[in-house]
Amino acid sequence: MKLAVIYDSKTGNTRQAAEWIAEGMSRIANVDAHAFSIDAVDTAFIGEAKGVVIGCPSYMATMTPDMRTWLMQGGKLGLAGKLGGAFATEQYTHGGGEMVIQSILTNELVFGMLCYSGGASLGKPIIHMGPIGVNGNVETHNGMEHYRENFLVYGERFAQKAAELFA
Amino acid sequence: MKLAVIYDSKTGNTRQAAEWIAEGMSRIANVDAHAFSIDAVDTAFIGEAKGVVIGCPSYMATMTPDMRTWLMQGGKLGLAGKLGGAFATEQYTHGGGEMVIQSILTNELVFGMLCYSGGASLGKPIIHMGPIGVNGNVETHNGMEHYRENFLVYGERFAQKAAELFA
Amino acid sequence: MKLAVIYDSKTGNTRQAAEWIAEGMSRIANVDAHAFSIDAVDTAFIGEAKGVVIGCPSYMATMTPDMRTWLMQGGKLGLAGKLGGAFATEQYTHGGGEMVIQSILTNELVFGMLCYSGGASLGKPIIHMGPIGVNGNVETHNGMEHYRENFLVYGERFAQKAAELFA
Amino acid sequence: MKLAVIYDSKTGNTRQAAEWIAEGMSRIANVDAHAFSIDAVDTAFIGEAKGVVIGCPSYMATMTPDMRTWLMQGGKLGLAGKLGGAFATEQYTHGGGEMVIQSILTNELVFGMLCYSGGASLGKPIIHMGPIGVNGNVETHNGMEHYRENFLVYGERFAQKAAELFA
Repeated sequence: MKLAVIYDSKTGNTRQAAEWIAEGMSRIANVDAHAFSIDAVDTAFIGEAKGVVIGCPSYMATMTPDMRTWLMQGGKLGLAGKLGGAFATEQYTHGGGEMVIQSILTNELVFGMLCYSGGASLGKPIIHMGPIGVNGNVETHNGMEHYRENFLVYGERFAQKAAELFA
Repeated sequence: MKLAVIYDSKTGNTRQAAEWIAEGMSRIANVDAHAFSIDAVDTAFIGEAKGVVIGCPSYMATMTPDMRTWLMQGGKLGLAGKLGGAFATEQYTHGGGEMVIQSILTNELVFGMLCYSGGASLGKPIIHMGPIGVNGNVETHNGMEHYRENFLVYGERFAQKAAELFA
Repeated sequence: MKLAVIYDSKTGNTRQAAEWIAEGMSRIANVDAHAFSIDAVDTAFIGEAKGVVIGCPSYMATMTPDMRTWLMQGGKLGLAGKLGGAFATEQYTHGGGEMVIQSILTNELVFGMLCYSGGASLGKPIIHMGPIGVNGNVETHNGMEHYRENFLVYGERFAQKAAELFA
Repeated sequence: MKLAVIYDSKTGNTRQAAEWIAEGMSRIANVDAHAFSIDAVDTAFIGEAKGVVIGCPSYMATMTPDMRTWLMQGGKLGLAGKLGGAFATEQYTHGGGEMVIQSILTNELVFGMLCYSGGASLGKPIIHMGPIGVNGNVETHNGMEHYRENFLVYGERFAQKAAELFA
């Protein structure tokens, strides 16, 4: 079963998060997971994928213009019926990552996707709408690495649900 | 396959919308659909249901306090893994129905539900996040009846997707 | 006192709404109000303006990519401290106009603006976060004209508040 | 000039944040700032206040039912025209604090308030829509204290703006 992560990354932090999600997805048996930059999406792979997770940094508490532009064409990829997820990176705890995730999920609903995060139903870590990494990390000064486990677990849960539904 | 609609209604408009959604669900073969007020939810029925759609009026561009209170206990109903949808009623086109739907869907994600609307993927009527009825209807002066078809179609599409996934 | 409306319009409907808002603003004494497309913003005028209202159509329940791109540069216009408002157009009652308004207002807060709609405090028409025109208007088949008064009143109220604060 | 902070707190973390905001407000000359629990709001004080900041914890990525219920009556306090702000606490970086702040601000717009955060216009710390404290703080294990400065600075900036507008 193919699963994809699609990201817009400017500094490499969001790419890192995307790759962790794909790594977490790969923990589930028979999953072939890949992360693609919006500049280099393998549309054939996406077409065969049963689930797609989309993410980008928060710019001014909103998704990046490049992601917004890319999403306008996302529907052409035939995403309807696939499992959908979202993630974000931000520079501060109050930096807008949740607004980004909520906007991406809204777009995914419009594509006809099935949105899923697992939420609080699978115990800790509780991941409400999707995982967020604080990349500037003024709070902890230890960078994205601190959020690694959340992205891995989120990817694993997403793949587990996709396997239950579609495998 | 059981499907449920759960609503908070003050004047009867939202109850009407809930019943139309349940009626639309019932168009799909072998679907047993019921609408429940938050005051009288049949928890055994919900437990067996494969999908639940939740809705309420917009009060000040936010869900009603009664719905907010009820949702705090919704997780105890074992909603994880079920298909989730949302709808709203409002008194004006800019009356907050979309904020209500987005908040309910966010709560459903936290419950571990699979959120689905069909969006633009099924042609007209396009129903982005969920259907909204303008109950005061200052614009058209013809009341909720005007939105009847949207609620019916939304219910039908939701039930069709639930049947594909779970029947 | 200068006041501005900035819009992204594809078919002319949103431009029409912007011009109605500017017309409403002009009902207040000593107000010089202008509406500008994002392609032709008079930055000197904006610099002197005491308030700016920003709006665009809903595309997939989100602001247009062009508006998202433009807003990334809005901070350079020195909008901090100005009164801020937002409006939207959409093709359906559930078409995403509220999500657009909420995103624009969030960007305005990040710019350091004072966001204001009047809400329910000024009687009818109650305009929660900002006015929305249903341009496709599948419901009423009478187009944007139906929402004209809401845009005019919103503009007038916005200008009245700006005059109270800054004139 | 009177300024108020109104909060719903269950464990004391949100009360602590509210008191820090009030302390930050008091840094501005001639400001009389007080924090009130929603159970014990001094309505006469609120009536005279030029600005009110409202906050609560995130429960399931949404405001608490008690805050939602309280806000339904907030309009009766005559908040129209006052400066409005919002804050939140949450248990995780992705815990819903931003959704809470955005919902509270939406309610404040409906009350007719002027919403303000300062955003990115005043340099670091950049506080997009309002400050958030991670109270469970699984990330840093050092609790609310870590966010103290953000709440103080936010209160100070809010009071400074209120003084500019109304003093």
